[in-house]
Amino acid sequence: MYSYPQLLELINEQIKSTQYGSNPKELYQPIDYMMSLGGKRLRPVLTLMACDLFETEVQHAIHAAMAVEVFHNFTLVHDDIMDNAPLRRGMETIYKKWNMPVAILSGDLMMIKAIEILAQTEKGNFKDLLQVFNTTAAQVCEGQQIDMNFEARNDVSHEEYIEMITLKTAVLLGCSLKLGALIGGANLEDANHLYEFGKNIGIAFQIQDDMLDSFGEGDQVGKRIGGDIASNKKTLLLIELMNCMQKDDKALLKELFVETDEEKKIKEVLALYQKYQIKDFAESKKQNYLTLANQHLNDISVSESRKEILLSTAKDLMERMS
Amino acid sequence: MYSYPQLLELINEQIKSTQYGSNPKELYQPIDYMMSLGGKRLRPVLTLMACDLFETEVQHAIHAAMAVEVFHNFTLVHDDIMDNAPLRRGMETIYKKWNMPVAILSGDLMMIKAIEILAQTEKGNFKDLLQVFNTTAAQVCEGQQIDMNFEARNDVSHEEYIEMITLKTAVLLGCSLKLGALIGGANLEDANHLYEFGKNIGIAFQIQDDMLDSFGEGDQVGKRIGGDIASNKKTLLLIELMNCMQKDDKALLKELFVETDEEKKIKEVLALYQKYQIKDFAESKKQNYLTLANQHLNDISVSESRKEILLSTAKDLMERMS
Repeated sequence: MYSYPQLLELINEQIKSTQYGSNPKELYQPIDYMMSLGGKRLRPVLTLMACDLFETEVQHAIHAAMAVEVFHNFTLVHDDIMDNAPLRRGMETIYKKWNMPVAILSGDLMMIKAIEILAQTEKGNFKDLLQVFNTTAAQVCEGQQIDMNFEARNDVSHEEYIEMITLKTAVLLGCSLKLGALIGGANLEDANHLYEFGKNIGIAFQIQDDMLDSFGEGDQVGKRIGGDIASNKKTLLLIELMNCMQKDDKALLKELFVETDEEKKIKEVLALYQKYQIKDFAESKKQNYLTLANQHLNDISVSESRKEILLSTAKDLMERMS
Repeated sequence: MYSYPQLLELINEQIKSTQYGSNPKELYQPIDYMMSLGGKRLRPVLTLMACDLFETEVQHAIHAAMAVEVFHNFTLVHDDIMDNAPLRRGMETIYKKWNMPVAILSGDLMMIKAIEILAQTEKGNFKDLLQVFNTTAAQVCEGQQIDMNFEARNDVSHEEYIEMITLKTAVLLGCSLKLGALIGGANLEDANHLYEFGKNIGIAFQIQDDMLDSFGEGDQVGKRIGGDIASNKKTLLLIELMNCMQKDDKALLKELFVETDEEKKIKEVLALYQKYQIKDFAESKKQNYLTLANQHLNDISVSESRKEILLSTAKDLMERMS
């Protein structure tokens, strides 16, 4: 079986050798730029890993892996326009480096290229692969819109929040694994268990990410502690706090939303989190999804030793984040 | 065989009965709105017509026809953002009626839905259909970017202009016909002749459209005569004028570009068009592409009587525009 670094190398080689086109350069240079920004390439690695799980040579899944990575980058290009984001992985976003029309069009083209690349897959039933891919792609768009809708709402439940992060980020992890499994020759039941494993791990990641912002150690994650609190971002923590606190604390939180002394704001919101045991709530939610993920992994009909790498990959990612 | 109005009715029924989704409504309402704005539905009608040409029941091509129409509308939604356009078919654009993020995301979702709908096609080799569709989709994006690039250039040749309109608008007519032909059971040679027929007709339409703005009769086309001239739009006419005129007229045209008296501007540019016989140039170009289109139609191996409807559809469209 292949290790994560080995699969990452295969993906990075494939990214380097993939030609999207050349004319007009205003469209193709941004695509090359975006695809070269790096990252841990989690999604395409998962696709290859899932194929490997069923003892099929991972090269058969390389196009599906690339399709997932190109699609993921397409969503980032368009999200950066909507978020007016200047930087991505420390580099200028396409939207800032070129302009808005170029970011819209090169994103559109990446979406088209993702399908074109997926269609190069020879193994598995292609219409099945395309259906998994398309369903997921539509869900990611839905998740992004629901996330934007939340900004204008103060009555989001934690169930709605979980639904949003499921659509916006978790289903693509499930999809990455399911595509690899189907190409690898898995039966539909196993492929679906793997999808659920990826989806539930994805939800747990996102909860972990929300927790890190408030309870993590700043320099370990390269992010300032309390950034989400400072910007009133509706994380799972804030949503649960808003739903469970007493009336007088509600008034206090409302004041804190417009507090200009950032240090004071972060300190007092953290005190509210402590008062209402928000960390325990989030930790228990996260554990629930990790348990679900493990149950689905257990149910897959391959030997436990072959599953180890998926478990350790998930563990490494959670630990690197905590 | 089916007539244009009969095929249009089939398309309109299909559009009415197609459900794209419902949640979140901020994404799906714009799609329903855009798809209900009407129009002559030329592209999907051509898909059904091409299927009919090869004596195959047109219902087999209804999903491909819808895919083409949804894709076309996706490009309009994103173009309207880039052009900052307030109106489309007399109604507010999605960008104006909702906002920019909604227009980006609902457009993205339409692109995904177009592929999903195409995948419902049962007849023909699906990977072949998808390849025609994807290649065309990428070309349409390229054409849009090249068109934007032209705005900043003063040295565009008429060959480059034709290449741009080919990518931006003509290939989608070719693609619409080719999909219908492949689903209808045509051999690749006939399908390609039909593609070339559509593409060349498309180029001729666009040249006709450019000519109408300067030489048409205002109320017949519902557009003000000289609108392109007033806005210095780089049409085939203006490009050819810039390439063939003498030095002193070049200076005059440069002044006219910034002339604020619109009536004077239009009158004097029209005088330059007359001096350099620009109308004859454009008319002859248009005829060349019509001739090419007809040659490809002739080469298709079905009876002449079955081809009549394609010829008369093209003729009707050219006449309605002149």
